[in-house]
Amino acid sequence: MNQDYIVPDNWSIIEEGFDVERVKSSESLFSIGNGAMGQRANFEEDYSADTFQGSYIAGIYYPDKTKVGWWKNGYPEYFAKVLNAPNWIGIGITVNGENLDLNRCKEVNHFRRELNMKEGWYNRSFEAVLQNGTAIAVNVTRFLSLVDDELGTIKYEITPLKGAAQITFNPYIDAGVTNEDTNWEEKFWQPVNVQHSGNAAYVTARTHKTHFDVATYMHNSIQLSGNTLHISPTTVNAGTDKVQFMYDVEAAQGQTATIIKLGGYTVSLNHDANNLVDAAKEVINTAHAKGYAALLNEQREAWAKIWEMADITIDGDVKAQQGIRFNIFQLNQTYLGKDPRLNIGPKGFTGEKYGGSTYWDTEAYCIPFYMATKDQQVARNLLTYRYEHLEKAIENAQKLGFTNGAALYPMVTMNGEECHNEWEITFEEIHRNGAIAFAIYNYHRFTGNYSYIPEKGLEVLIGIARFWQQRANLSSDKNQYMILGVTGPNEYENNINNNFYTNYIAKWCIEYTIAQIAKVKTDYTADYNRIMAKVNLNDAELQQWEKVASNMYFPYSEKHGVYLQQDGFLDKELIPVSELDRSQRPINQKWSWDKILRSPYIKQADVLQGFYFFEDHFTKEQLEKHFDFYEPLTVHESSLSPCVHSIQAAVLGRMEQAYTFYLRTSRLDLDDYNKEVEEGLHITSMAGTWMSIVEGFGGMRVKDDTLHFEPKIPKQWEGYSFKINFRNQILKVAVHAAATKFTLEGDKELTVFVNGKPVRVEPNALVTV
Amino acid sequence: MNQDYIVPDNWSIIEEGFDVERVKSSESLFSIGNGAMGQRANFEEDYSADTFQGSYIAGIYYPDKTKVGWWKNGYPEYFAKVLNAPNWIGIGITVNGENLDLNRCKEVNHFRRELNMKEGWYNRSFEAVLQNGTAIAVNVTRFLSLVDDELGTIKYEITPLKGAAQITFNPYIDAGVTNEDTNWEEKFWQPVNVQHSGNAAYVTARTHKTHFDVATYMHNSIQLSGNTLHISPTTVNAGTDKVQFMYDVEAAQGQTATIIKLGGYTVSLNHDANNLVDAAKEVINTAHAKGYAALLNEQREAWAKIWEMADITIDGDVKAQQGIRFNIFQLNQTYLGKDPRLNIGPKGFTGEKYGGSTYWDTEAYCIPFYMATKDQQVARNLLTYRYEHLEKAIENAQKLGFTNGAALYPMVTMNGEECHNEWEITFEEIHRNGAIAFAIYNYHRFTGNYSYIPEKGLEVLIGIARFWQQRANLSSDKNQYMILGVTGPNEYENNINNNFYTNYIAKWCIEYTIAQIAKVKTDYTADYNRIMAKVNLNDAELQQWEKVASNMYFPYSEKHGVYLQQDGFLDKELIPVSELDRSQRPINQKWSWDKILRSPYIKQADVLQGFYFFEDHFTKEQLEKHFDFYEPLTVHESSLSPCVHSIQAAVLGRMEQAYTFYLRTSRLDLDDYNKEVEEGLHITSMAGTWMSIVEGFGGMRVKDDTLHFEPKIPKQWEGYSFKINFRNQILKVAVHAAATKFTLEGDKELTVFVNGKPVRVEPNALVTV
Repeated sequence: MNQDYIVPDNWSIIEEGFDVERVKSSESLFSIGNGAMGQRANFEEDYSADTFQGSYIAGIYYPDKTKVGWWKNGYPEYFAKVLNAPNWIGIGITVNGENLDLNRCKEVNHFRRELNMKEGWYNRSFEAVLQNGTAIAVNVTRFLSLVDDELGTIKYEITPLKGAAQITFNPYIDAGVTNEDTNWEEKFWQPVNVQHSGNAAYVTARTHKTHFDVATYMHNSIQLSGNTLHISPTTVNAGTDKVQFMYDVEAAQGQTATIIKLGGYTVSLNHDANNLVDAAKEVINTAHAKGYAALLNEQREAWAKIWEMADITIDGDVKAQQGIRFNIFQLNQTYLGKDPRLNIGPKGFTGEKYGGSTYWDTEAYCIPFYMATKDQQVARNLLTYRYEHLEKAIENAQKLGFTNGAALYPMVTMNGEECHNEWEITFEEIHRNGAIAFAIYNYHRFTGNYSYIPEKGLEVLIGIARFWQQRANLSSDKNQYMILGVTGPNEYENNINNNFYTNYIAKWCIEYTIAQIAKVKTDYTADYNRIMAKVNLNDAELQQWEKVASNMYFPYSEKHGVYLQQDGFLDKELIPVSELDRSQRPINQKWSWDKILRSPYIKQADVLQGFYFFEDHFTKEQLEKHFDFYEPLTVHESSLSPCVHSIQAAVLGRMEQAYTFYLRTSRLDLDDYNKEVEEGLHITSMAGTWMSIVEGFGGMRVKDDTLHFEPKIPKQWEGYSFKINFRNQILKVAVHAAATKFTLEGDKELTVFVNGKPVRVEPNALVTV
Repeated sequence: MNQDYIVPDNWSIIEEGFDVERVKSSESLFSIGNGAMGQRANFEEDYSADTFQGSYIAGIYYPDKTKVGWWKNGYPEYFAKVLNAPNWIGIGITVNGENLDLNRCKEVNHFRRELNMKEGWYNRSFEAVLQNGTAIAVNVTRFLSLVDDELGTIKYEITPLKGAAQITFNPYIDAGVTNEDTNWEEKFWQPVNVQHSGNAAYVTARTHKTHFDVATYMHNSIQLSGNTLHISPTTVNAGTDKVQFMYDVEAAQGQTATIIKLGGYTVSLNHDANNLVDAAKEVINTAHAKGYAALLNEQREAWAKIWEMADITIDGDVKAQQGIRFNIFQLNQTYLGKDPRLNIGPKGFTGEKYGGSTYWDTEAYCIPFYMATKDQQVARNLLTYRYEHLEKAIENAQKLGFTNGAALYPMVTMNGEECHNEWEITFEEIHRNGAIAFAIYNYHRFTGNYSYIPEKGLEVLIGIARFWQQRANLSSDKNQYMILGVTGPNEYENNINNNFYTNYIAKWCIEYTIAQIAKVKTDYTADYNRIMAKVNLNDAELQQWEKVASNMYFPYSEKHGVYLQQDGFLDKELIPVSELDRSQRPINQKWSWDKILRSPYIKQADVLQGFYFFEDHFTKEQLEKHFDFYEPLTVHESSLSPCVHSIQAAVLGRMEQAYTFYLRTSRLDLDDYNKEVEEGLHITSMAGTWMSIVEGFGGMRVKDDTLHFEPKIPKQWEGYSFKINFRNQILKVAVHAAATKFTLEGDKELTVFVNGKPVRVEPNALVTV
């Protein structure tokens, strides 16, 4: 943890001072993205010390051969990996004949990074004295356009500080990149084609095996003191996978030499593979015509629109403010919801760890955020993503011995295929199937829009219900249905029997699916007939589903009055985390796996995840009992843990605890709690931070097509506000200790419930409660 | 399975006819070894088709870097691997200018292999017509000397069949070998030194990391028609890790040209590393002085001595006879008990699979065989092996969080360090600790020699008892001690709670250790004081042990009247194996791991392993109940499974079933049941075959220092006999349907019990019962 690393600021992430040790961490924290591509905050110029180079394109992956110590039947042979994409940001810099390399400068002063979240750009500035004594000021601004998501821009300015200087810009594009995270050190890219003409260049490369074609391009223009120099590159180096230009500029002391580099990718996911260079030319032409200032202005406006809907303000706590905005900003950099082929990777565009892109995080944590801060189509695209993978989920289940269209979604995936290979996760952490069904329910609950279910959702639900019915077995001993051999959300238990959460969501999935079948049958006959013709579901099978659901077993302790996380949970030594010596934490670093497994310690909400999803199935007294039983045993060693507990602590009125959990989630990366931010950011858990405020402190729920709030405020804050897109109207909620204020942007009045009482909110009129 | 592969014969393993597809399988089956080294039956001459080259030296290993998909704390960083040793058998053959390669001959006729188990040699003969039309007869005999275990010999004879032939022998030694089974394709050997003089050559190489030095040597002599030709090699090729000689011989039609090649290894385990070549010269000189015929004679005599003690005869069933002798032969080729640094690898010297050398197989299956067929020192050396690894077992336990001298022996090891990395095995299959303690008890029970316990065994027992006490925890729910998160002998269950076998042996270990402490305290005061000064054991700790042992929990079903294999076992769908479709077998090839885990199917004896070890703790009715409950759920997919079941079926008087199990174990490799014999033989389970006859059919037990028998005979056999070294006297037991005959070689009369009745056996007098 490093609390003094980032300068507190309401709207920007700021680092001051150059520290070689922090370069990789800052490369993560200052990452930029626009949903279609993204990159770590690597330096444009050469850098000879430790760095983790990363540039990524959404949807472009490589199937890496599985590495495993002992093979088990059912393991996938290949894993889709996030692929390090060709470098387009590189600009070699020579000043008076010497290469600029921050690791080799005599002095580096006034080094500063700023990630301006309000406007969506990243700036780096410093003054350097090179080995040859030349002193320069450097100022670099970079952004990835939201308006044209194939475009990135860099404005790289150099000003000689003592006497004139000969400045050479060597901008390049390079497809000769490798992954940090590879199993077998294979090359991922194969060069196809290199072209250049005038100030522009294009390198086309193809991924091995998956055969994605990507054209990486650049276009450069040079300015001196703000005036464009109409020069062509004096030298061009072109290889099979790289093009480098050279521009010489003579700048007097105080005069600024600037290169504006446009760059990015056009990819065969979105264009005919033969037209990639033409498509890139079009991007360049359009951007060039607009000019840098206009592009930056567009970017500001596009981000302003996002913030208009998604911003959360916090008064009186700048670090909390900075934290929540950083989370919202990163989520929007990662995924904007335009393309149902894409999803939200756990590290977004900030690193390669974890291989695949999609976890149950999307359904359990991210969808609520996107539903409330974007229009409905975004969440619907996330649902559609799973619909498109249904066939593969059915194949996946077949591999494990299931039949008749039962679907098991992968634990981690890019293209619908499993990307994980620990048997206890891959084969056993099957509750993921439940979250995918729950998201369909949640989407309908929040948006009121049922059409997704007859259109696509019901087929997914049927595949999932089939899986649960087949996965359960009748215990002749207890004459109830059981689900044996699973890993629950608490991954610190493996191969357990009757995980409460898994059994509960399985039962719910089946029952919800049965209800939707009935509803679609009545209200959407054409869809019903189309689906039934496809899935071959008969009454006998439905009865079997019902039998399993209605006779599901849940481990329960009469003595404690709680559902047990799994069979045999009470046989453990139930020593609370508070009595564990600090030297033993985090247990996942300090203990061997078997010790963790037989301990009672819980990685993240498990039974309580069920109480979170199905809050209204339980009383507050039940919640309290379970919270008091399980939270003291929870080590919160997953980034997804504190948010659920924060929400539940808020429900129980324990605001101090809720606030503590909130802090832990919102600045996880900024303060580098786990000393691993250099590997990339924890993107999906950032949505949990948003939930902590809106659902936790704000107490927002949707019940019977109506918004409910139970606003609370941590005593550390003066006030906070958030906005909700509720059925195409924007409701702004501003909470202060004394009152909660509602403002509605829309045209229909809205009745919300505040602490159980109806409040009528008229369009564009402030209501204070 | 391939029942017609090997020609049935009482004393030899015979293959007739050349089949490229069988070469790798035969390389395994015809392997030879002498306890110190061993090798697959690779051809001496070049061979261009598929082959698995393997030559191994006992105790020489390499720590291969662990390969794993997802790292868990506690995994070993390196694995000791059986190392493919330099090749000393190679003899390139050229006949009339053409290289002899069985894969490229025009014709190969009368191809025959024989492994003569009675005399301990391997012969191969064939007639070949080369591409150039030359026809030759080849006859090769090879053996590894039992008398001098650093010596191997090859007699390679070539006889031209049509006209004279120019024959060139190109014998070589080569340290440029690799392993089939390597994680990272590293080189294991580093050349040190190459020497040659006259007909002898020496290549010294050093293993990377472990720095074992090995001198591989050869000495050649050439004969024509049985007369030695005093010729020196005409050409010598010497590289950094190889020496090759060339001898030209002109042989007339019908004249036999012969090369006698002596070869083998001298190793730094047994010699000063600087004297390896001198040591090799001594081996050569001694062998050369004796001459080939005398060496072969010595070999016959040495094997005759082994058979005198270890042979089992079976009348009226040649395949069963061949099977049991093959098993006894291979066990003796693998381990002769001279060196307590060595142990019995699961593949012996016949392959590389499974990496390390020592499993709990040694204690559970092999020690009874070696106790009964060798002098006591051999089994004692096997026990000492573990004593020597006690410090490492304590370190291993420390890595997993245990303290105060608790010892966890590794699942697989070479040098005391763990060589396995699946958490469910490495960390959880802890019952291995129990077998190691049981072997100490078993040794004393069988030999009557208590001295090992005060000398060494007690320290091992204390480390193991400490482990069990710390590993158990008190369930506040049941107020009994539990052992959570284990894998039992049935590896088709992982991370289960309260495996009956594990809990039972844990309790037994503690109680047995407490009893031995008391006995050593009374009878061996000096040892007691020495040990107590070392282990720091006090009364409080002993009381804690007692508490755990006396209050151990065992899952039990009142309804079925059986101990349950583990908590929750009855929640499974208990469908017997007989109702499984054949297409689903073996389940470890057909099912995904999760499906296996939640099935009730048992890989090998688990609860029944406990009933085998602790037979006299249970009634025969209890055994019958448990056998009838568990055996129908057992798939016997471990080579260690059928023998225990065979013994128990015999106890229960179910001779048909006992015989079926026996057949399955005794010819597992000869008939290649599992289609994997090409990877090597199943050495350790061969001891189980021996147990099936002696303990199963013969019903031999030792109780209260007395031998007991309950002889039974499968109806397929006319009779069988075995010998037992019981306390330095050899008792021969010959069983026929009508009577059992006992003969005693020794000088003291012996009272044995036959079916519960005492029978007095006088030395050298036949007793018929």
